[in-house]
Amino acid sequence: MSSKGSLVALDWGTSSLRAALLDAAGTVLEERSLARGILSVEPGGFPTVFESACGDWLRDGASQAIIGGMAGSRQGWLEAPYCACPAGFDEIAARLAWIEPRRIGIVPGLSCEDSGVPDVMRGEEVQILGALDLLGATDGLFVLPGTHSKWARVVKGRIEGFSTFMTGEFYALLRNRSILARTLPESDGALDAAAFRRGVEQSLRGGGLLHNAFGVRTLSLFDRVAADALPSYLSGLVIGEELRAQQLPGRDARVVLIGASDLTARYALALEVLGATAQSLGSEATWRGLSRIAQAAA
Amino acid sequence: MSSKGSLVALDWGTSSLRAALLDAAGTVLEERSLARGILSVEPGGFPTVFESACGDWLRDGASQAIIGGMAGSRQGWLEAPYCACPAGFDEIAARLAWIEPRRIGIVPGLSCEDSGVPDVMRGEEVQILGALDLLGATDGLFVLPGTHSKWARVVKGRIEGFSTFMTGEFYALLRNRSILARTLPESDGALDAAAFRRGVEQSLRGGGLLHNAFGVRTLSLFDRVAADALPSYLSGLVIGEELRAQQLPGRDARVVLIGASDLTARYALALEVLGATAQSLGSEATWRGLSRIAQAAA
Repeated sequence: MSSKGSLVALDWGTSSLRAALLDAAGTVLEERSLARGILSVEPGGFPTVFESACGDWLRDGASQAIIGGMAGSRQGWLEAPYCACPAGFDEIAARLAWIEPRRIGIVPGLSCEDSGVPDVMRGEEVQILGALDLLGATDGLFVLPGTHSKWARVVKGRIEGFSTFMTGEFYALLRNRSILARTLPESDGALDAAAFRRGVEQSLRGGGLLHNAFGVRTLSLFDRVAADALPSYLSGLVIGEELRAQQLPGRDARVVLIGASDLTARYALALEVLGATAQSLGSEATWRGLSRIAQAAA
Repeated sequence: MSSKGSLVALDWGTSSLRAALLDAAGTVLEERSLARGILSVEPGGFPTVFESACGDWLRDGASQAIIGGMAGSRQGWLEAPYCACPAGFDEIAARLAWIEPRRIGIVPGLSCEDSGVPDVMRGEEVQILGALDLLGATDGLFVLPGTHSKWARVVKGRIEGFSTFMTGEFYALLRNRSILARTLPESDGALDAAAFRRGVEQSLRGGGLLHNAFGVRTLSLFDRVAADALPSYLSGLVIGEELRAQQLPGRDARVVLIGASDLTARYALALEVLGATAQSLGSEATWRGLSRIAQAAA
């Protein structure tokens, strides 16, 4: 005996699709994951993948599906144009792109602008506002680590602005494609916390990543850091460089991290070096965000 | 009728070998270039390549060959251990690694240390000290742009310290291997000076390359910069980030650029944004440097 599903929530990203069936109170009744990110969907194939992911839930009584993530991009199912910041649940709900009116809706991404350069996110806005709701907060600094990390400032329930950092992608490029690849061991292995912290501290000193990355090579050349610890040192360098660029509100800053636990743990460690405190949330923020967007659109 | 050759000067790098025959006054009588960088030389093959590059000059009367560059690295002909900074002509001449005593000598690279992280150069020290001599100067800030750019401070004729920046390598990785590769046109085309300058200014504002690089994508997404101008904008970002990390001695700073003219021209343009003045030198600095090292070793 399961309670009745009310809302289908989809997180449809570039490389994967996650779906959840929620009851009227927003409780997750069932979760599914498919390796059908938008890059794997042939033109015109979105309805079929959608049907296979959650068609049964809709036939079985759920009245609505709300989809966040890259499904709303130009390469996705239906483009949901970026919603300009500041934006909260109400602004996003008002800008849903409907595949079927009031039945299947796609969440728009957000855009903002800093010194004439735009920035964008798609999917993270759901997680940020969901986390805000889960924490019962109205303000905060939210960090979503990843290939392209996002830092977002929330004021009075709305995302005021945000910045993207290509931290995960830089790490992979330096680790696998640069001259450092010759110095680093084949596998990353477990995190060496001391080497990681040393990398963070080196970046916080300034000097810049263009210079500090070369240090991975020289520290190895002069046998100052063991080969096995070099990936952790490099990881500390790039995450430390991301932190260096922030204007954290003082040593007592409180940051909310959202993402996979191995990555949020690294950021929590790096923030510790700065004296900042971090709180971590995972996928529960996504489901809460989609559920609250559905409510705001009702 | 040519004047008699006295010194053979070799710049033996990773991917190429350049040789010059100099007279006793240091004037270049003849130059040669071979695609026989150290990476192309099989183990034990260095004497043969050396003979084919300049054996005739030595048989014909030149009494000595001095070799700078990666030939002195662990992967080269004979390892010439790094000479610690500060170092000038005398320190380097005293540390030559001799293949044949007083006849064929290899210039050592330099090392220095900053906050516990070592830095190294091999070959650039010859160019820096050669440029210093050509300019009749004893002090200066020298910049050698490239895959791995070097910034060196010279005080009273000796290189006090230096920093390496992986600027050229980061550009190539971002341009060809990152998500930006999808946004950029296939070929770089001619430099768009306005877009380049805009990239430099964006980096000087701070924010960091991890963030600013993502702007290449969003500026294109929002049609703010034409596709053809994006490589110049990205080039300005990475070179601007290199400049941001420097403590240039005020707006009236004078910098000596050494390298290929297309690259030194970009750096001169970037330095202009900062209000600094640049002077550029090319390969003549290499031959002067090797010539003066030979004199100092005599």
